[in-house]
Order: sequence, then C-alpha cells, then structure tokens
Amino acid sequence: MLSIEDALTLVRETARPLPVESVPLGDALGRTLAEDVASDCDVPPHDKALVDGYAVRSVDFQRRPTRDDPMPVELAVVEEVTAGAVPTVPLTAGHATRIMTGAPLPPGADAVIMVEDSTWQNESGVPLGVVQFQSALKLKPEMNLMRRATSIRQGQVVLHAGSELRPAEIGLLAEVGRRDVRVAGRPRVAVLATGNELVDAGLTPAAGQIRNSNGPMLLAWARRLGASTIDLGIARDDREAITRRVSEGLTADVLLLSGGVSAGVLDLVPEVLQSLGVRELFHKVDLRPGRPLWFGVHETEATRTLVFGLPGNPVGSLVCSEIFVSAALRRLAGHSAAEPPPLMATLDGEYHQRGDRPTYHPARLRHEGATAIVEPVVWHGSGDLRALAEANCWAIFPPGERHFQSGETIPCRPME
Amino acid sequence: MLSIEDALTLVRETARPLPVESVPLGDALGRTLAEDVASDCDVPPHDKALVDGYAVRSVDFQRRPTRDDPMPVELAVVEEVTAGAVPTVPLTAGHATRIMTGAPLPPGADAVIMVEDSTWQNESGVPLGVVQFQSALKLKPEMNLMRRATSIRQGQVVLHAGSELRPAEIGLLAEVGRRDVRVAGRPRVAVLATGNELVDAGLTPAAGQIRNSNGPMLLAWARRLGASTIDLGIARDDREAITRRVSEGLTADVLLLSGGVSAGVLDLVPEVLQSLGVRELFHKVDLRPGRPLWFGVHETEATRTLVFGLPGNPVGSLVCSEIFVSAALRRLAGHSAAEPPPLMATLDGEYHQRGDRPTYHPARLRHEGATAIVEPVVWHGSGDLRALAEANCWAIFPPGERHFQSGETIPCRPME
Repeated sequence: MLSIEDALTLVRETARPLPVESVPLGDALGRTLAEDVASDCDVPPHDKALVDGYAVRSVDFQRRPTRDDPMPVELAVVEEVTAGAVPTVPLTAGHATRIMTGAPLPPGADAVIMVEDSTWQNESGVPLGVVQFQSALKLKPEMNLMRRATSIRQGQVVLHAGSELRPAEIGLLAEVGRRDVRVAGRPRVAVLATGNELVDAGLTPAAGQIRNSNGPMLLAWARRLGASTIDLGIARDDREAITRRVSEGLTADVLLLSGGVSAGVLDLVPEVLQSLGVRELFHKVDLRPGRPLWFGVHETEATRTLVFGLPGNPVGSLVCSEIFVSAALRRLAGHSAAEPPPLMATLDGEYHQRGDRPTYHPARLRHEGATAIVEPVVWHGSGDLRALAEANCWAIFPPGERHFQSGETIPCRPME
Repeated sequence: MLSIEDALTLVRETARPLPVESVPLGDALGRTLAEDVASDCDVPPHDKALVDGYAVRSVDFQRRPTRDDPMPVELAVVEEVTAGAVPTVPLTAGHATRIMTGAPLPPGADAVIMVEDSTWQNESGVPLGVVQFQSALKLKPEMNLMRRATSIRQGQVVLHAGSELRPAEIGLLAEVGRRDVRVAGRPRVAVLATGNELVDAGLTPAAGQIRNSNGPMLLAWARRLGASTIDLGIARDDREAITRRVSEGLTADVLLLSGGVSAGVLDLVPEVLQSLGVRELFHKVDLRPGRPLWFGVHETEATRTLVFGLPGNPVGSLVCSEIFVSAALRRLAGHSAAEPPPLMATLDGEYHQRGDRPTYHPARLRHEGATAIVEPVVWHGSGDLRALAEANCWAIFPPGERHFQSGETIPCRPME
C-alpha cells in the first residue's frame, strides 16, 4: 500500500497552478500573489515627521541646558506644515517649523520635538511666533523623524510571487500603488456524497439511514481554504446517478467524492470514474483513518480536474482532505513551497498505539510557556465526528504497537 | 495614560453581543453558535459495520485454529446487507451475514471480519453461499463494529453556545439534523481614512501626499475576522467632510477611523465625534505603536456603534486593531471567553528595548521541536508597513530600557 509521503508526491506532481488572473485589490485577500511587486515610489516619499511638534536644527540645541545653564531654548516659528502640504521655507539658525505627523520636513531640519515638550509663547493663537523648549529636553539628531525611502526604495521588490495576501500585504500593495494585482486562480471545488444510506441534513433518517454530514463539512472545509464550491448533493449507489453527477463535477478544478471507494459490492465510484476517463493514480493509502482514498485526474482540452474519492466516514474524509486535498489546493492556488512540516509537541497523557498504519488521532494543541502540548481527545474511531469538535489538531502516531508515555515528543498537525 | 489592560476592559465592557439570527447551515461557517445543540438521534443510529465483510458471532470462532488445528472456519451466508438497507435475518449458529461499511448489524452478530480475510466458496457470484475464514484469523468480539450511540446519544448536547463553527462543527450539525442554526450576528464594520495627505491607491501622490494604505488594510482585516464591511473611502481634514462620512459610519456596528486623532492642528476626529454624540471612553493608550487610539460609543434607539479612532500610521492602526478591535469583534460576534493569552516563545536574537511604553514589535514565530521561537524582524517604526509582510506575530516587550538576550522567554501574539 502507498505511504502517505508517496501518495502526497503523486498529488503534488499532478496538481498544477491554475491560470493567473488579475483582481482588484479589494478582492485579493487570501489569494496568492502571482507576480513580484516593485514599489513605484519611495516610502516615505519625503523626510517626514513622526509626531506633531516642531521641526528643528539640532545644532541650535548644542548649547545644552544644564544645571548650571537652565535657560530654555527659544526658536522663531517660520512656517506651519500640515500633512498633505509642502514646506516652502528652509530652516536656518534660530528657526523652527510647526509640523504635523506625516508632513514633510523643511530642508535643514534634522529633528522633530513633540508638541508636548514645547511651550508656545504667543497667546494670540496665530501659527507664527516664538516657541520655547524645556531645559530638560534631551534632543538627539534624527529624533522623531523618518528619512525618505527608509521603509521602501522606489523600484524595490516589496512582495514576491507566492506570497499569501493577508491584510498587511493588502495595505502594502495599496501603499506602492497597486489598484489591481495578479494572483493565482481560485480553485473551484465540487463536492458529491454517494451512498444509499444518506439523507439530507434536514430530513429524518429511516431505519438503516444516516444524514449526509460529509457534504456540508467538505463544502465548508473547501471554502475555509479559499476555494469556491459547487454542491452536487447526494447520489444514490446507482451507476447512472453517479455518472451524471460526476460528469457535472468534472467541470470543476477539484472533485471531492465521499463514499463508494471501499470494497463493498455497491462501491461503484472507481468504476464510474474509469468509464468517464478519469485516470487512476492511486487507490488506498497506508493511513488510519483514511485508507480507502482514491485519487485520479481527468483531462480534456479545456479542463483538468483532480478527483479525490474520499472515505465515506467523516473523520477519514476530513483527514484525507487535510493531508492530500489541501496539498492539491495549495498547488492549484499557486503556492510553490512544500506544506508546512508537522509541529512537534509534548504529549499530555498516555497513548497506546496499535495497528499497522500511521494514525491521525484528533487532539487538542495548547501552549504552556514556550512549549507546545498535545492531548489526544476521546475518540471512537472514524465514524466519531463529535470528537473533532473538541480537537484543533491531529496527533500523529507511527505504525506498530507501542505505548507512549506522557512527556514524549510527538508530531502533530494543526487543523486547517 | 491608560494601560492596555484597562483600555481592553473598557472595550470589553462596551461591546455587547449582537442580536442572534438563524442562518442556513451552508452559511454558518465561521459564525459563533448562539444555542446549545442537542442531537435528535443516536450516532450511529444502529450497531454498524466499520468495514466491508462478514458479520459473525464470535462464539462460532471459539474453536480457534492453532498449529495443531489449522482447519479454517466455514460459515453459511444467510443474507447480504448493504448500507442503507436493514437486516432481516438474525444470526444463529454457523451463519454469517455479508455486510457493507456503515450497514446495520443483524441481531446476534458481535464482530465483523474484513472481506480481505475471507475466501468465498461459491464460484457463481450469487450473494448467498459459504464463506471460509483463514486459520490465522485472530477474531476478537466487538471487532470492526461500532455500537449504536457510541459517538452521540439522542438528546446529548453536542455543541454549546459560543462554539466557533468550523468545518467539523458544520458536519456535526448536519449529522444531528440541523438545516438551520442560531448564530450570533455578524458585525458590520465601516472604515474611513482621514487626512489631506491621502490619495487613493490607484493614484500617483503629489508632493507631500501618500496613498491610503490603512483603508484597504483595515477592510481586509475586518473581513478576515468574519465581519462584513462598508468602505467609506477617504475624508479630507475638513469638519463637514468628516461629519458626513462619520454619520454614515454610525449605521454600522463598528466604525474604524484612521488618522486625525493625534495632537495636530487638523486632528478633527475627536471633536467631530463629540458633536455627533459619540461618547468618548478613552483617548490614548500606553502602547507603542498605537498610543493615539481613541475609543467611544454612539447609541440611538435603533443603533449602537463602537467607534475606534486609530492612529494614521499603518502599523499603529494594525496593532490597535489586533489588540482592541478584535476584542470588540469577538464580543459582538458572541464569544464569551476572554481573548487567548499571549503565547510564550524563546527569543531568537538580541533585542534592545527602550522607551516608556510596552512595545509590539513585528516578529516571525516558528517552532523548533516542541519549542516556540520568536525572531523580531527589521522594522523602522510605525510607518514601516513593509516589515509586516515578513511578520506573523507581535513580540511584546515591557516598558523601560533593557537588553534582552537570545534565549530569553518573551510573550508574543500571533497575528489574526
């Protein structure tokens, strides 16, 4: 049986980045940048004040007030510069410019003094007059200002292709003048649940039936990972019904099927996929839960669809999605980097591992001090979806029978 | 000046949960559950097979094949039960039922043997006949089955009010029969940038001007936290312009203003807010960057709006959003729990802290083994948005001058 790593390699090799598209900045959140972005300007574009106060020449403060010389420094205010305005009067000896946060410094200024550290000498409220600075003031050159291009030089690449666009990146793109941005295509994911036993969440199951939990869960999961989704509902274990819905799903970038891939007499999915020209790349992975996973690809001149036949049990289908489908979605969405490696965490509680497959056990990850701690939750196996509501990660145990002691370090994987 | 904790307390006390609403399950992802949800059914609803194979009575295997007695066990197959069907024949001595994953067990069965561990004795392919089990088979009672109600008992509360609805919770809600679900209201956040120096991202700034990066960043940030957003654009430093836009923003649940709250001559925001009846709760917090933060509330019979006057510099406005606005959004969206505490991490590299305010420094968090490591990024202060693109957390340093050695443990806060 295929190992997780070998199966992942096949998935990675099969998934190709979707065509790049241009989107308005307001729609770019969560997308993957598909171009290197260089700044069209210096940031800041001018030497700027970081506080509201007075732009001064530090040389005017070289006669420092001391205990022996407590006399304050007085300067004549020659201009007021608000943000958005431009200074017109270069500073010369004995002069200061009233300046607001963000405004350009006048030539000659090399420090800004906060307004709180000054005393205005004119009562009239007019902008120009004399300002006095306390004798205790410790003035340092370059204080409270930011020189032009300190943050970004014009032409500098500020973001590279492959970056995820979070709020900070959106702000940065706005700062360097991008109204639109080229991003990797957004994957379209279709979801189809199969099985005669399934009824819709809104219905009351008859004897032998259960509700379709995989469909809503997988649709939500795909949306959470940034995909747009197509809900194909439930197909009965009937060749024609499955064929019709699968054909519809093959217009998407990814088709997720749940159920129908075990060894049961009605497990028709692999057969239908083959008849529709979906090329099988693997079936079954050495993994618990999730062994029955099926993976293939369907290609026409116009479309290319990755098809995952997920187990019918909900935990198995979520584990397979988190390991394999997420790797595919990352590639489709333009991420070139490998998936993040597992997190190492200290096991809280004992754990008895048995069986011949690596196990992904729902668990709760927390931090104590700088240490990651992982505690497996009570879990009744692949049909026990309730356990997942208490979990925020998967604790990973290797195959073979072994007793893990509390305090051992084990790998785990935060849930997407 | 107000401490971060005191300011947070005021924000938490002022933010009240929005009215509860009912949404279809397909729209509930990311929302906060506003009811305790009990299951209307047992899960599983019947004793069920976990594999495809044969339901058997373990008593029929008590004569265990050994080296001295290698004879395989043969049972007559009396029925076939597929998923969605119901068994009609109770198992008696010497009999087995062919059964598919998920299907109900017949009365009398207490184990399921995988089809891979059996040999079908009839060549005809008809369902009923004789099945033989390998002599090496280790049969244990309760093997490969899940008893009714193991995961969930009818009437059991499976999710409590306050839970965040992730994909697993969506699946669980479907499983227990919820087509609609009551969730906390979704906050509407309006964003207005103020300042004569600001131009839209698509324009080329003239001398003294810069592009509005805060607006797009804060809109993306609020959407990332699950809010719906209203873009109020840019208002010039003009009493009438600000008044008009702020009035529009007071129809939202949260109004984020950026700029105009420092001590500059054109910092009109607090004054306009007062004239519109917004009650000030605090102005200025002991924090770097982010000191000028203003917070107040506006109430009418029909509306209640929390108003944050964020600093005009982008890093300060993001820090204030992450600390204070996120706490407000959590309350509005129905989270009763306190914000998660800071993560403790090992400092990678030296850091010299100075100044009289607690500092939130953009940093990169990673894990090595089970240890969280935090590395401050090169950062040129509150105007340096570029540094944030390299960061995924805030490293938190206390006030006062102190040199931190590499290897010390410090608090940090992952970015939202």
